[in-house]
Amino acid sequence: EIRDIVNDLHPSDIAFILESLPEHERQAVWQLVDSEHDADVLLEVDDWARESLIKSMDLQDLVAATGTMDTDELADLVPDLPPDVVAEVQKGLTDEERAQLIEAMGYPEDTVGAIMDFEMVRVREDVSLEVVLRYLRRLQELPDHTDQIFVVDRQDRLRGTLALSRLLVSEPEMEVSQVMDTDYLTLNPLDSDADAAGAFERYDLVSAPVIDDQGRLIGRVTIAEVVDVIQEDSQEQALSRAGLQEEDIFAPTLNALRNRAPWLLVNLFTASTAAFVASRFEGTVSHIVVLAFLMSIVAGIGGNSGNQTMTLVIRALAVGRVNSSNIWQLVKRELMITLLVGVCGSIVAAVFAWYISDSWSIAVVMMAAMIGNMLIGAAVGVLIPLIRDRVGKDPAMGSSVLLTFFTDSLGFFIFLGLATVFLL
Amino acid sequence: EIRDIVNDLHPSDIAFILESLPEHERQAVWQLVDSEHDADVLLEVDDWARESLIKSMDLQDLVAATGTMDTDELADLVPDLPPDVVAEVQKGLTDEERAQLIEAMGYPEDTVGAIMDFEMVRVREDVSLEVVLRYLRRLQELPDHTDQIFVVDRQDRLRGTLALSRLLVSEPEMEVSQVMDTDYLTLNPLDSDADAAGAFERYDLVSAPVIDDQGRLIGRVTIAEVVDVIQEDSQEQALSRAGLQEEDIFAPTLNALRNRAPWLLVNLFTASTAAFVASRFEGTVSHIVVLAFLMSIVAGIGGNSGNQTMTLVIRALAVGRVNSSNIWQLVKRELMITLLVGVCGSIVAAVFAWYISDSWSIAVVMMAAMIGNMLIGAAVGVLIPLIRDRVGKDPAMGSSVLLTFFTDSLGFFIFLGLATVFLL
Ligand SMILES: [Mg+2]
Ligand SMILES: [Mg+2]
Ligand SMILES: [Mg+2]
Ligand SMILES: [Mg+2]
Ligand SMILES: [Mg+2]
Ligand SMILES: [Mg+2]
Ligand SMILES: [Mg+2]
Ligand SMILES: [Mg+2]
Ligand SMILES: [Mg+2]
Ligand SMILES: [Mg+2]
Ligand SMILES: [Mg+2]
Ligand SMILES: [Mg+2]
Ligand SMILES: [Mg+2]
Repeated sequence: EIRDIVNDLHPSDIAFILESLPEHERQAVWQLVDSEHDADVLLEVDDWARESLIKSMDLQDLVAATGTMDTDELADLVPDLPPDVVAEVQKGLTDEERAQLIEAMGYPEDTVGAIMDFEMVRVREDVSLEVVLRYLRRLQELPDHTDQIFVVDRQDRLRGTLALSRLLVSEPEMEVSQVMDTDYLTLNPLDSDADAAGAFERYDLVSAPVIDDQGRLIGRVTIAEVVDVIQEDSQEQALSRAGLQEEDIFAPTLNALRNRAPWLLVNLFTASTAAFVASRFEGTVSHIVVLAFLMSIVAGIGGNSGNQTMTLVIRALAVGRVNSSNIWQLVKRELMITLLVGVCGSIVAAVFAWYISDSWSIAVVMMAAMIGNMLIGAAVGVLIPLIRDRVGKDPAMGSSVLLTFFTDSLGFFIFLGLATVFLL
Repeated sequence: EIRDIVNDLHPSDIAFILESLPEHERQAVWQLVDSEHDADVLLEVDDWARESLIKSMDLQDLVAATGTMDTDELADLVPDLPPDVVAEVQKGLTDEERAQLIEAMGYPEDTVGAIMDFEMVRVREDVSLEVVLRYLRRLQELPDHTDQIFVVDRQDRLRGTLALSRLLVSEPEMEVSQVMDTDYLTLNPLDSDADAAGAFERYDLVSAPVIDDQGRLIGRVTIAEVVDVIQEDSQEQALSRAGLQEEDIFAPTLNALRNRAPWLLVNLFTASTAAFVASRFEGTVSHIVVLAFLMSIVAGIGGNSGNQTMTLVIRALAVGRVNSSNIWQLVKRELMITLLVGVCGSIVAAVFAWYISDSWSIAVVMMAAMIGNMLIGAAVGVLIPLIRDRVGKDPAMGSSVLLTFFTDSLGFFIFLGLATVFLL
């Protein structure tokens, strides 16, 4: 029956189904999941879904589920767990595991420390591969994503890495020190997880050692965690551009309100400011009403053009392709391109302005204002992400609302200002 | 000197530096790169940079660089290579390699076939692990990202997979069939690469076998390629929302023009349409000029609110969380949330309208129009990505321009229409 079907699925697939169901059905399916899968499912579901799953479990279920987790996994869940569950579970840990748990919980979000695990296989450099092979066989099982084992000295300082594939193709009589790799990438637990992900991508890694300032091996990062970092960061970026956080698309409407309202209020504020700027030219608009219809074109095209520039600059910053030495060149290039696109585009706009107003002078004012506002868009589109990046903030978040603020307000100002000077 | 510094770098780092330099400096650095790194660098750089690197190489360099490549790598490069180079290089291939090259070139972009390689290690199921270990030792080297070897029968049909970690911890006397995994994920060469990436992410894979319709092993996909797919797809999405393709930020301005102009022309067209709709109410606006300044608020907030809805729907579609069974629920929920946010937000907007116009009736019209236009934004924000998805198009591309088209035109129409009916 249905219980069997659910429990035959991979825990990741169960997690996916739970994420795709409205709250009520989610709880119903969650009841069907065998407790042996609880841990894996809890670790796999997104944060917003996890909370509702945990809420429906009693102390005993939760202790059973979390008691089997690795310490790094437990650390990820602790913030969502009731304190009594944490108190109960940590009783079952060894001293070493308790130390790992505290360590893992201590690293801030978005650092290597927060995504590393402690499942390293360690060997000494003065033993033969034969000995290593025998040692591995005694382990019965290797940790997931073990593509290399770590060669450490008595102080646990990392001396080299030994790839499993190297181990397999080398003669068993060789010593570890002869075949180990001494030219490897190491991570620091306080490195940003995005930088680590960049290294994994660039050097095609499956795992990487994490060492402390004394060179001691304290953990490892695997590609499975890195892929999650890459996915989450790209989601976050897409959502943050619309002023959103990840949201349960079946959550109560009041939760959604909290997610969406702040951004829309900010937009309302900037749009009102732009409207206020325009209203200072009430006299001009009441004389030439058609300006009212053209001004939104000037504002909109400046915003869209600036958004193209900004998107490219954010991307270039993200991959580290822009820095202080080539920034000036980039600004000049963007202004140049925008001027070109602006001249071509404004001819089209001028024709429309003439068609709607029957006035060549309005068309000329339209052209000038549009080119001017597009140049403002380009300048602001380069500057906003650069400044946010310089002061250490995410260049994407909130950039578009700031850009629109400038291109709307200044677009209205330039267009109506020029009209006031030349057309009245 | 500088030549040594460059050549000591990892080829991926050299590729990154080349991507970050203006054309002239790029060529200068490329001259410094030893020919032994040429192949790796060419494979690593982005498409737009690769073209300019290839242009500066002569036939001999290119044949030397591409002659050492794996056939799947060569297949990726062939479209960019001069035909005489291809003709020369394929002379050096074995019959099998030539068949692989043709196969790899035959799969369309964005399929599993286009990212798979042919570097599989195969064993039979009726031999002992001891034999397998000896066989691997004779290979001297395993292909990159070999976390498992493939168990095939005489017809090359896949029978199971043998993880290296399993191989290492099992007793050498065991037979392959006893320890191999028979419950594994397989890919078809015509699967989409994004779906394959989803499977890698969900099941935390390092490699996966690709089989044909007869169950024969024809290739494998590795996590290194999958990470590139994930990265590229998220870039593409971010860029396509601004109507852009990947662009060399140092390319000549004319190239950039071609990238940016089409989108801005579309925007100009939609903005002009909205302006034209508004201009039909010229009489109303000339009587109550302040409407001209308020109407852009109504249009803008509808667009922003609809953009939030659309972003969430695109995301839900991308992860497969929306389908025809829950779509109606989603539409209702979005309309509900938007109504709530709209009522709250429109009170703020009404106060502003009153402040600027000194008229309570204008404030009321503003409120009604804003709520109405936000509901339009929500409906269109759900429908556009759904329809594009239903007809098999990328739901993100071009969605925002369509959305703005509706919220601008209908925003003006509702606001000025209500004003005409109730205020004149
Ligand atoms: Mg359960
Ligand atoms: Mg997930
Ligand atoms: Mg993060
Ligand atoms: Mg963690
Ligand atoms: Mg783990
Ligand atoms: Mg890579
Ligand atoms: Mg060279
Ligand atoms: Mg390679
Ligand atoms: Mg690259
Ligand atoms: Mg692709
Ligand atoms: Mg390929
Ligand atoms: Mg390869
Ligand atoms: Mg995963």
